[in-house]
Amino acid sequence: MAVGTSIIIRVELDKTAVNFGEVATAINNAGGDVIAVDVIRAGQLTTIRDITVNVSDIESQKVVNALQFMPGVKVVNTSDRTFLVHLGGKIEVQPKLPIKNRDDLSKVYTPGVARVCSAIHENKSKAYSLTIKRNMVAVVSDGSAVLGLGDIGPEASIPVMEGKAMLFKQFAGVDAFPICLDTQDTEEIIRTIKAIAPVFGGINLEDISSPRCFEIEERLTKELDIPVMHDDQHGTAIVVLAGLINSLKVVKKPIGSVRVVVNGIGAAGVAICKMLLAAGVSHLTAVDRFGAIKPGEEYENKQWQWLAEQPQLQNGGCTLSEALVGADVFIGVSRAGLLTVEHLKSMASDPIVFAMANPEPEIDPELAEPYVRILATGRSDYPNQINNVLAFPGIFSGALHCRARDINTEMKLATAHAIASVVTDEELNEQYIIPSVFNAHVVETVRREVVKAALRTGVARRVPSEFRE
Amino acid sequence: MAVGTSIIIRVELDKTAVNFGEVATAINNAGGDVIAVDVIRAGQLTTIRDITVNVSDIESQKVVNALQFMPGVKVVNTSDRTFLVHLGGKIEVQPKLPIKNRDDLSKVYTPGVARVCSAIHENKSKAYSLTIKRNMVAVVSDGSAVLGLGDIGPEASIPVMEGKAMLFKQFAGVDAFPICLDTQDTEEIIRTIKAIAPVFGGINLEDISSPRCFEIEERLTKELDIPVMHDDQHGTAIVVLAGLINSLKVVKKPIGSVRVVVNGIGAAGVAICKMLLAAGVSHLTAVDRFGAIKPGEEYENKQWQWLAEQPQLQNGGCTLSEALVGADVFIGVSRAGLLTVEHLKSMASDPIVFAMANPEPEIDPELAEPYVRILATGRSDYPNQINNVLAFPGIFSGALHCRARDINTEMKLATAHAIASVVTDEELNEQYIIPSVFNAHVVETVRREVVKAALRTGVARRVPSEFRE
Repeated sequence: MAVGTSIIIRVELDKTAVNFGEVATAINNAGGDVIAVDVIRAGQLTTIRDITVNVSDIESQKVVNALQFMPGVKVVNTSDRTFLVHLGGKIEVQPKLPIKNRDDLSKVYTPGVARVCSAIHENKSKAYSLTIKRNMVAVVSDGSAVLGLGDIGPEASIPVMEGKAMLFKQFAGVDAFPICLDTQDTEEIIRTIKAIAPVFGGINLEDISSPRCFEIEERLTKELDIPVMHDDQHGTAIVVLAGLINSLKVVKKPIGSVRVVVNGIGAAGVAICKMLLAAGVSHLTAVDRFGAIKPGEEYENKQWQWLAEQPQLQNGGCTLSEALVGADVFIGVSRAGLLTVEHLKSMASDPIVFAMANPEPEIDPELAEPYVRILATGRSDYPNQINNVLAFPGIFSGALHCRARDINTEMKLATAHAIASVVTDEELNEQYIIPSVFNAHVVETVRREVVKAALRTGVARRVPSEFRE
Repeated sequence: MAVGTSIIIRVELDKTAVNFGEVATAINNAGGDVIAVDVIRAGQLTTIRDITVNVSDIESQKVVNALQFMPGVKVVNTSDRTFLVHLGGKIEVQPKLPIKNRDDLSKVYTPGVARVCSAIHENKSKAYSLTIKRNMVAVVSDGSAVLGLGDIGPEASIPVMEGKAMLFKQFAGVDAFPICLDTQDTEEIIRTIKAIAPVFGGINLEDISSPRCFEIEERLTKELDIPVMHDDQHGTAIVVLAGLINSLKVVKKPIGSVRVVVNGIGAAGVAICKMLLAAGVSHLTAVDRFGAIKPGEEYENKQWQWLAEQPQLQNGGCTLSEALVGADVFIGVSRAGLLTVEHLKSMASDPIVFAMANPEPEIDPELAEPYVRILATGRSDYPNQINNVLAFPGIFSGALHCRARDINTEMKLATAHAIASVVTDEELNEQYIIPSVFNAHVVETVRREVVKAALRTGVARRVPSEFRE
């Protein structure tokens, strides 16, 4: 199930020592498939060729190694298509209109621009109509918890934030710009984001490690008048809830009666628990490494403490195995291999399993399949991918559209229901509980429902014309 | 000499109280010219119309006022073309390639992007090839000294920074993003810019008031490894020097022998003095409100102190009138009306006058013309406009191209000479000492000369292929 890729290897071949057939054979033996060859330069003694090779991610280094140690072969350069699309970055800043002549220049820049500046100076809220603020989100990371890679620093996180900016624009028409912070100090991060906020209509926090991420989101939500959302928490939680809503339709169990076990109570796990409680789950067990969080217990971790105080929390102190006996739903944001077939067998009828550990699920999907009614993962190579790309473009688009001060729980719940609703009753089945990220109805439905929820809860500062009576 | 514009006035007319002819007459009487009328809604008692009116900037308010006080007329909204081009902002963030399917998604985002992140994590300098850093400049302001408007705050400064981002892209293909800071504290500004630096290849400081701007630029230059330039200082100084180089060719005086008076020793004035000294001016008088800066005197203002220590500084303590007697060149970055015809008459033969006060020059150009050989201003409605749009796109483009650590004096001098060189000896005359901002040769010449200067002075971290032997 490794992800396939194409790599291009530039080699310099010493004609007297090696021929191309030998090179191609070596590539094949190492697990690669030569699909194209381009001669870049042919000299008397040496030739330089670009060899395009289809290969699995895991084997690509094996192929390169095989060539590196061949006599007469010098590997000049290796680039695969993934690297090629990243060259020079994936986004650019474009003028919306060209400056063709002096007249244009005097409108968009001095002297004309001065009148626009003065208008905003007189009434700050005009920045929403006369600047990019209206449609601009900052995608902010400190590089401390990037994908499954951990603390790789701000520079190395840029490609993810650029990718996110692409998705914002392509899926929702929202402009987004990557801000990668050269600090991991909570107060410094809060101060910096507040300082750069004037240009932005919203803040998407991304890949910031726990527990820092909670404090940062909470403080910014309080101290800024634009919506702030940590996507690793809420994006995931929203899409999990969307998937659960549809799964429960399939198995015909009401949300208030099912027993749900969430395994892995980090940033995403906490957000999932909160979302499930807000959606009406009344039997919840929250399991981490040290067993299930105990109702009434005192925890240093503020989030755990909050959970321990919730009346819906059950089975405090028991192990994952104990918690799963008779459970209807397993939701994992933990580690590969934690879930076994025995676990699945001990669950209630029609088990629903969301195994979202990254990159390898809590249980091998092929192993789990015979024992579950519905299986979802975080991966694109199985059905039912829980992908937060389904949530963030639409939710920010809606929040910007009505100039929401905040992205509150009602807006998140509305997003989950909107995503779930895109799958019609006719389409709904065990293999299709969640729409594809390329389904255009997702963003438009989410956006509309988010605006409605914002208007209903009083956080909108503008009523878009299509919502006026 | 007022700048003309078109405004669109939306009016609601009470049919029983007023007819359109009366409205049109009122607009004409107030100095406007009706060029189009669109009926937006026609009811039984009222109609709503958009009236497009050609009008000078100064009179536009008069026209609106005239309507506001007419019985039966309600002004719903006024928007002119300058405002219209600003609606929703002037720039957007665009993906460089579309995400058409799952395969594309897995390259630009998870899971493929993880390998790109890892590559940068192993070697941070790869951010220059694999992210937007290579070509991305932050245009940073704290809104404290915006155009001639003063301290109008970060939100109101956004339109200027957006305009600048447009110019960067259109003239030099450089991506630029506005950062408008909600703080005017020097240390906080420095800290914030350092924190957000990872994504950027350069920092263009803009419209930050003096003396804060000196400290901020100096500290950031030292503490960051990417080039930092305060454009209000150096952009202006570079273009002034370019104009002076060509002016001196016209009057056939060598730069080392002319006597130059700079009037107004704020941020731009200081930078101009430094640039002139670096370029070889050896008789300089720096005049501010309290007279000419005195060689050897102690000043609290660090920049003045530096100037006072320069051996080329002359005429300490004298007034502007005294300083101008026998001077070859006047350079004003001060206030309208400070320069008189008497002053001009007292100068040496072939006087060169750069009267750049904003928006009104130190002397009315029509008044000055008979008494000077060469006249330049900051305005687009006279010949010889000293416009820093000539400098910043090319200088940053060159600095990014060779990954310069810094924009040093040699690179600034090279920029001035490059701009001057675009005007050929055949073209050069009193009315044409500086190229148009729309002259495409400017950016390419500046860029090339900046790279050469960076390579020569050892601040380049990459030799672009066209500069390899």
